[in-house]
Amino acid sequence: MRAAVMRNQQLIVTTVPDPEPGPGEVLVRTLACGICGSDLHMLKHGPHLADITRRAGAPGMVDLSRDVIMGHEFCAEIVDHGPGCQKYLAAGTRVCSMPMLLRGAELLPIGYANDVPGGYGEYMVLNEMLLLKVPENLSAAHAALTEPMAVGWHAVEKANLTPEDVALVIGCGPVGLAVIAALKIRGAAPILAADFSAKRRQLAQGLGADVVIDAAAESPYQRWQDAARRPDAEAGLSGPLALLISPFRPAVIFECVGVPGLLQQVAEGAPRNARVVVVGVCMETDHIEPIFAAIKELSMLFSYGYAPDEFALTLEHLAEGRINAAPLITGERGLDGVPAAFEELASPERHAKIIVEPGR
Amino acid sequence: MRAAVMRNQQLIVTTVPDPEPGPGEVLVRTLACGICGSDLHMLKHGPHLADITRRAGAPGMVDLSRDVIMGHEFCAEIVDHGPGCQKYLAAGTRVCSMPMLLRGAELLPIGYANDVPGGYGEYMVLNEMLLLKVPENLSAAHAALTEPMAVGWHAVEKANLTPEDVALVIGCGPVGLAVIAALKIRGAAPILAADFSAKRRQLAQGLGADVVIDAAAESPYQRWQDAARRPDAEAGLSGPLALLISPFRPAVIFECVGVPGLLQQVAEGAPRNARVVVVGVCMETDHIEPIFAAIKELSMLFSYGYAPDEFALTLEHLAEGRINAAPLITGERGLDGVPAAFEELASPERHAKIIVEPGR
Repeated sequence: MRAAVMRNQQLIVTTVPDPEPGPGEVLVRTLACGICGSDLHMLKHGPHLADITRRAGAPGMVDLSRDVIMGHEFCAEIVDHGPGCQKYLAAGTRVCSMPMLLRGAELLPIGYANDVPGGYGEYMVLNEMLLLKVPENLSAAHAALTEPMAVGWHAVEKANLTPEDVALVIGCGPVGLAVIAALKIRGAAPILAADFSAKRRQLAQGLGADVVIDAAAESPYQRWQDAARRPDAEAGLSGPLALLISPFRPAVIFECVGVPGLLQQVAEGAPRNARVVVVGVCMETDHIEPIFAAIKELSMLFSYGYAPDEFALTLEHLAEGRINAAPLITGERGLDGVPAAFEELASPERHAKIIVEPGR
Repeated sequence: MRAAVMRNQQLIVTTVPDPEPGPGEVLVRTLACGICGSDLHMLKHGPHLADITRRAGAPGMVDLSRDVIMGHEFCAEIVDHGPGCQKYLAAGTRVCSMPMLLRGAELLPIGYANDVPGGYGEYMVLNEMLLLKVPENLSAAHAALTEPMAVGWHAVEKANLTPEDVALVIGCGPVGLAVIAALKIRGAAPILAADFSAKRRQLAQGLGADVVIDAAAESPYQRWQDAARRPDAEAGLSGPLALLISPFRPAVIFECVGVPGLLQQVAEGAPRNARVVVVGVCMETDHIEPIFAAIKELSMLFSYGYAPDEFALTLEHLAEGRINAAPLITGERGLDGVPAAFEELASPERHAKIIVEPGR
C-alpha cells in the first residue's frame, strides 16, 4: 500500500507492505485521518519525545530507527475480517476506533507503533471489539474528529462542572477548541476563550465561546474576573470578609497550550480555589513558583486522552450535530500532500485541522 | 510586656508596649505558642517571603522595616474584654483562636503583622467572636498544637479519602506528622510515611503511620506499590489489560517537604491517577517536567491553611485524645530561649515542635 512514512525523522510517501489482520482484527481502508500536533512534535523532536514518554511510563514504545506510519485520528471502512472475528459489522461498514491495538500481550498505540500502521497509510488493522459504527449521516472527515474531540470531552469531565462555574480556555488550537465544544454541550455559561490568533478566536466563537479574548491586548484573567464577579449586593461581600469569601463565581481554567511558562502564568492569574485542568502537554522542563498555587489553593488536574465510553459518546455528539465540526476542518489532502501539510500546520493563522484522505 | 521581637532580621528579647483590645477584641495572656517552620523561614528569608506572598496575593502584608512579634500557634488566657464584647467567656478562661484579627476593614495575620503581636509575647489581642474555649483536661501546650494539626486535617479533607485509598506521606516534619494524625482519625489504612530522619520516622509511627520508610535506603514509591498492589487473582489483571486497569489501589500522596525538586520527584514516582496533595510550601522557583503528570493524569491539589470549622474540630480532636500529641512536643522554652530555639529547630534529628511559654 501507499503511505506517508516517518523514516529518519523525515516524512516520505512510499510503498510499504499491506498490514494483515491477526485473530480478532479487521483490515480497514483509511477514509480520513486528522493531523495532530503530537505528530508534528514527533517528527521534529522524536528522540526527545520517545525518551520522555518512556521515562514517564507510557505504554508501547516506538523505535525511531525503524519506519513509523503515524495518524491516530481516523475513520475507516471495513475491508476484510481476520480469523476468529464475530463479523457483526459487514465489509463496507464505516468505523472509528480508539487508536490502540490489543495484540497478544501487547498494547500498541496506533500511529506511534512500528509494527502496525496509522492513518497516514491506505490500510490499517483494528481490533474488531473496539470498532464503533459511524452513522450514515456523518462524513468520514467529521467522524475522524472523534479522537481530538474526545480529548476535550475528557478534560471537561475531569473538571466536574457545576452550573456556577465560569470557564476560561487558554489557547484555541485543536485541543482548546475541543474543550470549548465539550463545555458548550455541557451547558457551561459563559465560556471565555483566549488566543493570540484572530482566526482561532473566530473558530472558538464558532464552537461556542461566548467571550473571546486577544491575549496580546488584554489579560484573560482580568477579563475572567469581570465576567465572574458576583453582584456585591447579592453576595454582601464588603469589608474584611471579602478577603475570606470569594467575590467571584468558581473558576475552571483549561490550559490548552502546553509550552513552558504557561503553568506559572495560570498560577499567577488564576483566582483562589480555581480548578486548573491541564490539557496542553508540555514536553519540556517547566519552571513554576509553587507558592502561588499554594496560597490560592489551586487544583491542577492533568488530563490526557479519554476513556472508551467518552470516545464513543463523542462520536455520538458529532453524529447528532452537537459539535459545529465543519469550520474545524481547514484543509483536506491526499497522501502526497502530507509532508507539505505538516509544514503548513506550523502557522496557526491558516489552519485548525487538516484531514488526510489516503484514497484521494 | 516582654516579647521576642523580629527586628532587622534578628530575634531579640525586649520590652514593648502592651497591646490594647479594640472593639469586640479581648486582651489575652499567652500561655503557650509553638514555633513554626514558616517563622524560621521568615527570619532567614523575610524579604523574599514578603515579596513572593505579596505577588501571590496573600492578605495583610508585613513591613519588615518595622518590628514583628511572630507566633501563630497559640493557647492563651483571657485577661480583659475590650469595648462592645459579649463577655460570654469570663476572664481566666483558656482559649484558642485562628491566627487572624479582623479589625475594621483589615484582616491582620497574627504572627506576621506589625500592629498586633503574635504568641512570642506575653500578651495578644484576639477577636472575641473567634475564641474557642479550651477544655479543662487539655494542657495549654497541647491546645497550642491546634493550629499546626488543623493544617494536616485540612490537607486530608482535600484528598477526599475513600476506604480504598493507600496514603503515602512524604516528609515527617510537623506538617507531615499532622497529616498522619488526621489520616489516622479518618481511618486510612495502611498509612505509609517517609523521612530521612530516624527520629521523625519514630514520631510518624507514634502518630499512626503503619509503615515508615527511610527514603535514603529505599524508594517510598516502590514501597507504596508493594503495599497497594491488588492480588492478581482478585483483580484478574494480566496481559495487556494490566496497562489499562491499575493493579494498585488508589494513591493519595501528601507532599510535606516543600523544597525544590519534590514535585518532580513525586510526579516521577507516583502511580497513574494519583491525587497529590501539596502541603509543603516551596518558597523558591521549582522545575518540573509536566509530561510526567500529564501521562499519569495526576491531580495536584495545593493545600494551605484550614477553614474555621476544621480549626475548631482539630481542637476537639486534641481534647478527646484522638491525636497522640505528647511526643510531638520536644522542647519548652521561656521567651529568653526563643532565639536559641530557632537555631535548634534547624536539626530535624532533635526536634519536632518547641513550645514557647512566655510566662515561664
